[in-house]
Amino acid sequence: MTGDGGRERLFTPGPVAVPPEVLEALARPVVHHRTAGFRACFVRVRAALAEVASVPGDDVMIVTGSGTTAFEAALLASVPAGARILALRGGKFGDRWAAMARAFRFSVDDLDVAWGRAWPEELVRARLAAGPAPDAVTLVHSETSTGVLHDVERIAAVVREAAPDALLLVDAVTSLAAAELEPRAWGLDAVVAGSQKGLWLPPGLGFVWLSERAWSRAPAGRRVPAYALDLHRERPRQREGEAAATPATSLVVAAEAALDVLRRESTKARREGLARRNGAVLAAGRALGARPFAERPSPAVAALAMPDGLPAPDVVRALARGGVRIAGGQDGLAPFVVRPSLLGWLDDGDALALAAALERAWRDLGRAAAPGVAVAAAQRALSM
Amino acid sequence: MTGDGGRERLFTPGPVAVPPEVLEALARPVVHHRTAGFRACFVRVRAALAEVASVPGDDVMIVTGSGTTAFEAALLASVPAGARILALRGGKFGDRWAAMARAFRFSVDDLDVAWGRAWPEELVRARLAAGPAPDAVTLVHSETSTGVLHDVERIAAVVREAAPDALLLVDAVTSLAAAELEPRAWGLDAVVAGSQKGLWLPPGLGFVWLSERAWSRAPAGRRVPAYALDLHRERPRQREGEAAATPATSLVVAAEAALDVLRRESTKARREGLARRNGAVLAAGRALGARPFAERPSPAVAALAMPDGLPAPDVVRALARGGVRIAGGQDGLAPFVVRPSLLGWLDDGDALALAAALERAWRDLGRAAAPGVAVAAAQRALSM
Repeated sequence: MTGDGGRERLFTPGPVAVPPEVLEALARPVVHHRTAGFRACFVRVRAALAEVASVPGDDVMIVTGSGTTAFEAALLASVPAGARILALRGGKFGDRWAAMARAFRFSVDDLDVAWGRAWPEELVRARLAAGPAPDAVTLVHSETSTGVLHDVERIAAVVREAAPDALLLVDAVTSLAAAELEPRAWGLDAVVAGSQKGLWLPPGLGFVWLSERAWSRAPAGRRVPAYALDLHRERPRQREGEAAATPATSLVVAAEAALDVLRRESTKARREGLARRNGAVLAAGRALGARPFAERPSPAVAALAMPDGLPAPDVVRALARGGVRIAGGQDGLAPFVVRPSLLGWLDDGDALALAAALERAWRDLGRAAAPGVAVAAAQRALSM
Repeated sequence: MTGDGGRERLFTPGPVAVPPEVLEALARPVVHHRTAGFRACFVRVRAALAEVASVPGDDVMIVTGSGTTAFEAALLASVPAGARILALRGGKFGDRWAAMARAFRFSVDDLDVAWGRAWPEELVRARLAAGPAPDAVTLVHSETSTGVLHDVERIAAVVREAAPDALLLVDAVTSLAAAELEPRAWGLDAVVAGSQKGLWLPPGLGFVWLSERAWSRAPAGRRVPAYALDLHRERPRQREGEAAATPATSLVVAAEAALDVLRRESTKARREGLARRNGAVLAAGRALGARPFAERPSPAVAALAMPDGLPAPDVVRALARGGVRIAGGQDGLAPFVVRPSLLGWLDDGDALALAAALERAWRDLGRAAAPGVAVAAAQRALSM
C-alpha cells in the first residue's frame, strides 16, 4: 500500500501468513534427521497434530508434499486396487479426488452438486440406495474453490447407514484446526490436511490420519503400488520419529513452533474467531453489493460473487496494486468470484483492514462505495 | 564442544549446513504461489538448476519431497509399465531403486558389486552381453552409503554400446553440484537430485531432469499410474512457473538464495574444493589408522572403515558429545564404517576442525592419537 513501506498482506486461503515464531524456527541452522533431538521433535509434532485433529494418541503421518500428495498417500494406503469409489463433487477439490482415483484405475462414480451448493444428504442417500454400494467415498470438508463447508458429520452418518463398509476419505486440507472435525465420533476413515492452511506453516507438508479399518482394508497384495508415498512402510518408522526418506526437517521444526502458537488459545476460541472474521468479510462484501457464494460458508474462505459488471479478476488486481493478496475464482468461477480469507495468522483488526481494502478496490474500479460502508459492516459482524 | 556455546557442527552427507543467506530467505514472510513474483522466482530457480546440472535451457522439474520421491517421479514418467530394468547395486541407494522398481512391478534384474567397490565396466558389459537387453538401467553416481563415486560416464558408454535403447536413470542426489556430471555428453536419460545435499538447502525438494527420449519413451496409456508425482502433467505448468499442487514456496525462495551463493565460485573451483576437503578427511582418517572404504571416493562423503576393535557407533557418539555430527554406517556397514562429509557450506578450516574432532574422539575412546597427527595430515592434503 502507498506509504505502507511496500508491505504485502496475504489474505488467501493458503499459503497464509504465519506467526513470526514459525519464521524464526525456519531460520535456525539445519539439523540432521537421524538424531535423538530431531526424532523427539518429530514425535512431539505428530502427537500435537493428533490433538489438533481430535484423534489424540493415534498415528498422524507426516508426508513431504502438498495436500494432494497426502490425499494420494491416504487413498493408496486404504482402498484396495480396483475398488469402487463414490466421489462427491461440487468444486475443484472434489473434482481432483475423482480424477486422482481415476488415474489409479479405481472404478469411480461421481455425485455432483452445483459449485457453491452443499451436498444435500437426501441426494447422497438416494444415490446410495440406487447402488451399487461403494467401497469408499471421497468427500471434501471445506471446499476451498467454492467456500462451502460441507456437512461431513451428516453426510458421514448417511453413508454409514446406507453403506456401512464404505471407507470415508475426507479432504480436511483447509478445515483442520479451523472447523469442527471429529473423525472418531463422525466415523471417518481418512482425514487429510496440508501445512499451509489452518496450521500456519509454509507449504511442503501434508498430514494423514487413518482409522484402524482404513489401515487394514487393503492388505499388501491388493494395493495400488506405492513407494515414496507408502504409508504402511512409513507407519512403524514414524512412530520412532523417523521417516523412510529424509523428511523436510526445517518444516517439521517449524511445525512444532506453529503448534505451540496454536495452543495458546482453545480450539473453541480459535474456531469461533475464524468463523467470526470470515462472517465479517462476507458482511463487508454484502455491504458492497457482492453475494456470499457458498450455501454453507466455511470459516476458511469467504467466497464472494461479484455484483453484475464487476469482473472478479479486476478486483483481485486492484487489491494487489494496494499490496493486498486475495485469491480469485478457480476454473468456471474465475470471471465472477473472489476468495479472500482470514485463515492465516490474522486477527479482527486484519478483517477490518481487508474490508477497507475491498472498499478502496471498489472505488478504484469506479463503483459506488460510501467510505466506511464495508468496514462498518465488518465491525458490526465482529461485535467490535 | 565444551566452551563452544553449545554449537553443533553438521558434517553429514545431507542434510548439510546451509549458508546464512538461505536461512534468511526461509525466514521471509510466506508468499503466495499464484503471483507474478513467485512464478518468476520459480522460473529463475529452474533455469539456474539447469545450469548447475549442465543442461542449460532444459526442463528441470521441481518436486516437493525427498530424492526418493524425485526418483520415483522420474522412473514412472519415463519407463513403460512392466518394462525390464537392470538395477546396478552396490550400496543402500542402488538397492533402493531396485526395490522401488519392484514395488511398481517392473521386471528387475540386479547387478551387484560388494559395498565399497565401484562397478567394473567389464562386469556391466558382460551382463549386457549375456542378455536380456534392459529397457532401462538404474545407477547411482555418488553412492552415499559407501562413499563411492561410480564412473557414470564409463558405465553409460558401455550401456550405450551394448543396449543403445536402454534409458539410463541416474541418482545424482549427492553428486549434483559436487562432482563432474554431464548428462548430455554422457548420454544420460534421467538425473535426480535432492535439495539437502550439494545444493545447500534444507530437505524437502527433489529435482529431475529427463532427456527428450525419456520424456517420450512411455506414452500416456503405457505408464504406471501416477498423480501427485506425474511429471508429464507438471511439465507445461512448471514452464509457466506453476505447479499442479501448491509447491513448497519457502524452499523454492530459499533455493534461489542458495543458487546465488553457489554461483559465487566457478563450478570447477567448487568441485575441486569439495574433492580436496574430502581427501583431507580421508587423509586424517588414514593418519589415525582408519581405511578409506570407497574404491573410488566421492567428493560428497568420506567413508572410513574403522581400525579393528574401534566400533564405528562409538566414534559417532564420541563426536556427537563434542557437538560434531557425522553419519554412521548404514545397514551392514553400521558396525565399522563412519561417514563424515564436507558437502555442506563449509571450507578448508572446517576440514581441520573435523580432523581435530576425530583425533579427540580417538583419544576419548582410549586410542593412541598423537596430538596434531590427523590435523597435520589434513592440512597437507589441503596444501594449506
